[in-house]
Amino acid sequence: MTPPPARAGDPIEAIATPALVIDLDALERNIARMAAFAREYGLRLRPHAKTHKSAQIARLQLAAGAVGVCVQKVSEAEALAAQGIADLYISNEVIAEDRVARVAALAGRVRLAIAVDSALGIDRLARAVQAAGSTIDVFVEVDVGQGRCGVAPAGAGSLARRVVSHAGLRFAGLQAYHGGAQHIRSSTEREAAIRRAVAAAAAARAAVTSAGIACPLVTGAGSGSFAFESASGVHGELQPGSYIFLDCDYAANEAAPNAPAFEHALFVLCRVMSRGASHAVVDAGHKSHAIDSGPPAVWRRDLDYANGGDEHGILLARGGNVDALPALDEIVWLVPGHCDPTVNLHDHYVCLRGGLDQGVVEAVWPVDARGCVS
Amino acid sequence: MTPPPARAGDPIEAIATPALVIDLDALERNIARMAAFAREYGLRLRPHAKTHKSAQIARLQLAAGAVGVCVQKVSEAEALAAQGIADLYISNEVIAEDRVARVAALAGRVRLAIAVDSALGIDRLARAVQAAGSTIDVFVEVDVGQGRCGVAPAGAGSLARRVVSHAGLRFAGLQAYHGGAQHIRSSTEREAAIRRAVAAAAAARAAVTSAGIACPLVTGAGSGSFAFESASGVHGELQPGSYIFLDCDYAANEAAPNAPAFEHALFVLCRVMSRGASHAVVDAGHKSHAIDSGPPAVWRRDLDYANGGDEHGILLARGGNVDALPALDEIVWLVPGHCDPTVNLHDHYVCLRGGLDQGVVEAVWPVDARGCVS
Repeated sequence: MTPPPARAGDPIEAIATPALVIDLDALERNIARMAAFAREYGLRLRPHAKTHKSAQIARLQLAAGAVGVCVQKVSEAEALAAQGIADLYISNEVIAEDRVARVAALAGRVRLAIAVDSALGIDRLARAVQAAGSTIDVFVEVDVGQGRCGVAPAGAGSLARRVVSHAGLRFAGLQAYHGGAQHIRSSTEREAAIRRAVAAAAAARAAVTSAGIACPLVTGAGSGSFAFESASGVHGELQPGSYIFLDCDYAANEAAPNAPAFEHALFVLCRVMSRGASHAVVDAGHKSHAIDSGPPAVWRRDLDYANGGDEHGILLARGGNVDALPALDEIVWLVPGHCDPTVNLHDHYVCLRGGLDQGVVEAVWPVDARGCVS
Repeated sequence: MTPPPARAGDPIEAIATPALVIDLDALERNIARMAAFAREYGLRLRPHAKTHKSAQIARLQLAAGAVGVCVQKVSEAEALAAQGIADLYISNEVIAEDRVARVAALAGRVRLAIAVDSALGIDRLARAVQAAGSTIDVFVEVDVGQGRCGVAPAGAGSLARRVVSHAGLRFAGLQAYHGGAQHIRSSTEREAAIRRAVAAAAAARAAVTSAGIACPLVTGAGSGSFAFESASGVHGELQPGSYIFLDCDYAANEAAPNAPAFEHALFVLCRVMSRGASHAVVDAGHKSHAIDSGPPAVWRRDLDYANGGDEHGILLARGGNVDALPALDEIVWLVPGHCDPTVNLHDHYVCLRGGLDQGVVEAVWPVDARGCVS
């Protein structure tokens, strides 16, 4: 693990750049806003920890009323469980025998749920929990429009039947998440995509009840779409992740009318390491922030960030106003294009209290599940 | 740090996916080929460790004749020095006071060099090494066409004079690397870009000698361009990094006539976790491999990899031949689009001996400098 880029009590100037920085005030407001929204709609909130990979942030979410957290990988669940997070849902399929055995073992230590979309996956899981003497909640994943994982709605009934046929597997309901719809910019078009996704989830639920099985819960929804699933009457649980940080990609969405407003709470602090006549070079490239959803934005300056490779970023002044360029050694705040894979590059969060201008480092938190891809 | 995905002696099937895997036979051949090339041209070889971030691979390169390795960041240098690599060149500017102090401290423990492109950088470095009682080799970086860091050729003389004015700083020569030219596909066009870069380096060298200072070395060149710098008579040292692994982006270059052929030696091993009628979903998304230079290629199968997000990849059969799709739980090898940031996502290399079909895990190496961005 890399050395921490700062210590509690440090001023901003003392943070070793580039560093992943949380504006704690903004983070806490974001967490409270989503929790209030879920309460208002009478829905369970199970935020997705794939975004933050942090037991400390999970604890803040749980303290605000979340019923547990989602993760995407077995090793993420293990890393958070090791830090005391006791209610976890792997909202993803696990097929490999070694990983299924780890799932079954973990289910003996925490309240665990998992998604399935195949007979093979269900049967392997059943054998593993039997061998481990554990039990697990199982959600059948439905493809509600993304074309990635999940069965067609009509196939949900037979998979649910297969789940309930096994001792040790508790049928918990349906996983219905449309990842592909999260970044449709237009609120109207996004709502239309989610309306189709909700209809698919409802059809899957009907297939399950037609098979004579009660469907306790439909779970899903992300930071781009939760306002629509919430109003649907079908989803009973929300899984948003990115709302805690609000990256550039989500900020570019036209907000849903009933959605609370979130604030940027995650930044990459960088520093000018080289200056040309018409550009500045900062010490943060795409080993410091993910660029799969576009480059980072420069926070509150009239500057654009151009890709400078793995270790460099090139700052250009808008309209050729070179006086706006930062000086050598000046610090610059970047807002990541996509928060989840940006977090996954760093071992630590530097947590700032009091804002980006005058703030002080209140804590440094580990990214507990960084690199947990298996 | 994440748990190792395999143990020595494991068969391929036992590797926890997704995992970063080295074909050791191919790696060793690539290292030997570049070493032989540098010997043939009578040039120093100082491979770039920003690619591999591994002391073990650096040792293999040194054993094959490399004079030392380059790194891009202070924390990378510290991580490799901690593992016994004793000749390191930070081929990049360092300005922040805290980092300059660490550079000066490290220079007291290993043979260290660094690049500069500003008076401020030189003066801070001089004060720091004086305070630490250390000495350091200093290369003046010249902008040879990339428009990122470095001074114009005419400015190299005055910076060199500034370097030699300080006790503790040894003027070591010029850093002349054209990152932007490495992936020009056409060999002819790439050669033309490097011809201009070499001319700029030669002009900078003339500016240094005109200032009454001997220029001991011009260092630079990457895996896409080294064959051209080698033939130039100006560069005395080569800094290629990616040749050890050969990613898709470099493989797409038209090779230079005099360059040795390299082989793919770095792979992401993944596994099918979900199957649809016309696609397969693998457990590796862009938290497992970088996509800044395009998606990974599927190794020796008639399949295309489509982006499935952070944790998923979608495999599609070319020409709609769905019989070519892998089955649920089948393993699949991916060749990363860009090796450097892919390596930076993983804590371990799984090192395979005997090829991708029948190989056995010979060792698991740590990615010592993973995440070392500061």
